[in-house]
Amino acid sequence: MQLLPTCLAEIRGGSTEAVRAAELRQLQLTKPAGSMGALERLGSRLSGSQGTSPPRIPERPAIAVFAGDHGVHAQGVTPWPQEVTGQMVANIASGGAVVCALARQVGAELVVVDVGVAAPVDVLEPRVRFLDRNVARGTADLATGPALTREQAVAALEVGISVAHDLVDSGVDLLVTGEMGIANTTPAAALVAAFSGDDAERVTGRGTGVDDEILVRKMDVVRRAVERAASATDPVDVLAEVGGLEHAALAGLLLGGAQRRVPVVIDGVIAASAAITAAALAPDAVDHWVAGHLSAEPGARVALDHLGLEPLLDLGMRLGEGSGAALAVPLVQSAARLLNEVATFDSAGVTGKDAPA
Amino acid sequence: MQLLPTCLAEIRGGSTEAVRAAELRQLQLTKPAGSMGALERLGSRLSGSQGTSPPRIPERPAIAVFAGDHGVHAQGVTPWPQEVTGQMVANIASGGAVVCALARQVGAELVVVDVGVAAPVDVLEPRVRFLDRNVARGTADLATGPALTREQAVAALEVGISVAHDLVDSGVDLLVTGEMGIANTTPAAALVAAFSGDDAERVTGRGTGVDDEILVRKMDVVRRAVERAASATDPVDVLAEVGGLEHAALAGLLLGGAQRRVPVVIDGVIAASAAITAAALAPDAVDHWVAGHLSAEPGARVALDHLGLEPLLDLGMRLGEGSGAALAVPLVQSAARLLNEVATFDSAGVTGKDAPA
Repeated sequence: MQLLPTCLAEIRGGSTEAVRAAELRQLQLTKPAGSMGALERLGSRLSGSQGTSPPRIPERPAIAVFAGDHGVHAQGVTPWPQEVTGQMVANIASGGAVVCALARQVGAELVVVDVGVAAPVDVLEPRVRFLDRNVARGTADLATGPALTREQAVAALEVGISVAHDLVDSGVDLLVTGEMGIANTTPAAALVAAFSGDDAERVTGRGTGVDDEILVRKMDVVRRAVERAASATDPVDVLAEVGGLEHAALAGLLLGGAQRRVPVVIDGVIAASAAITAAALAPDAVDHWVAGHLSAEPGARVALDHLGLEPLLDLGMRLGEGSGAALAVPLVQSAARLLNEVATFDSAGVTGKDAPA
Repeated sequence: MQLLPTCLAEIRGGSTEAVRAAELRQLQLTKPAGSMGALERLGSRLSGSQGTSPPRIPERPAIAVFAGDHGVHAQGVTPWPQEVTGQMVANIASGGAVVCALARQVGAELVVVDVGVAAPVDVLEPRVRFLDRNVARGTADLATGPALTREQAVAALEVGISVAHDLVDSGVDLLVTGEMGIANTTPAAALVAAFSGDDAERVTGRGTGVDDEILVRKMDVVRRAVERAASATDPVDVLAEVGGLEHAALAGLLLGGAQRRVPVVIDGVIAASAAITAAALAPDAVDHWVAGHLSAEPGARVALDHLGLEPLLDLGMRLGEGSGAALAVPLVQSAARLLNEVATFDSAGVTGKDAPA
């Protein structure tokens, strides 16, 4: 298995020439300079990722939802039973989850990948593509020791890389991160703390509905795990110590997209924790990523700030599944579309600002 | 012409029963309660406007762009020549403007309406529907006297109402506000100040690119106009005193949509100033409006706060044309779609939170 080292070796940053060309083009379009705000910066970013100006308009977005379970569930860090992970994978596969409705709304393909669910997922007559790439039947309890072996972490990273490659090879031109995993905000918080250097208390949140008592316990688990991770020798070791299988696979998807120069939209705190992990492995990959939204989970903002990424949406969402990133897809397409389709002052015969009367 | 009084008389607020039914339905869907944030509140709002739960998913959005010129341009409140209004109307009609690209992106119909452009607009072979409903060849200078006669203000309101009716009669189920008019942030600021009671200095911004010197002049113009408007006898008089023809037409569109129980998406500060005007005429109409985005122009936030509306997007945009509202269309559709398509815990066989292990 040489997927990971090859991927890391092939990643290049965005093209500064293409970014500059897009920025110049923005100034010629029939609109006041800068008046489309973040959408203009996004258009230039897409140019950099693709290495061309104007950027191609993404027409084949695909959402990859990676699912996994977590030994840390035993610590009582969530009020949801662990079996919900597999049940929700089945719900996604049968088209009934939030991310399914949003994928239909934005015209995105959807694939759900079992990379670490505890019990085999029973998917009869799936309406959504389901991939069984299970690396382990859930992680070990990160409160008491490493969540993963190094080999498991690498295998899950490579699941994500290979899913990115397969999707891009099939014509997908915009990758969207999604995940499902009861208790997975705990390893996400630990990854964000470990790679940002920020406090466990600052990055740990209430996930999908944690009360004060559970929150204190969760912060304590995260703090102790991050202390242990401080002696890790490299980013993969940190990921193995405190991460999760879907976090690793998402990091792989982010790296595989960057390798192929296909933009990847980051969803909430799980995807952001995967991104901060992936950036530790390949800092140049960040140029190929777009922050879809700002999750209500505090670790998301810490991770995005650390990566220098500006979230497009801020709707107070904290669902995961890829929901916030899916909603951002039309914004990404719009940013590229403007650079392709808006007339210039010259071509439209429109007088510019400050022209003599 | 009895369009306006009939419209105002027929407007009813949103259905509280439908809102409550939608809120209950949200709790049954396979997601943690409240985890879709503002999108859940939006879905319930759409139910209230349409009077049904789940709300129908808007499938035929239409953007109406109203264009007008402004006598206050003579005061030097903008660096853009007045002729740009007509040039941009032609650019929109030929499909080259930002709003055209965004309309294509979100699958919205687009209609551009000359309600008050100074010079006749020459539209050869339009690729976008163009309506000549010119009420006056620009407003009078609001710095020196009333911008409009009361009759002109009513006529422009009724242009907006009739456009709303025509679109809804043709099957449109989501209305989107757009506008074009060089210098039109000045009357917008005056309307927001007059109807909110806030200071001219707080609501007046740099529009599409005003330097410090022009900004001071613009604030002074707004302050004096608002002082004069204080003696107006009703909202239509305020609108005539300090408003604009496209502002009036947009207020009409907002009222006509509310009358027909079709949600209307508010764009930036011009549309927000029209909304605060329309709400003064028919307070219940607000239940039918959705704030598409938060414009960078300060008056937009003041108006939306006054109306109790929560903007969906905040991308630092300040273009107008309907650009921010157009980008919000997929979010509106998504909010309705979730209430229609997401499985319930029961139907999907997913265990709820806090279930016994």
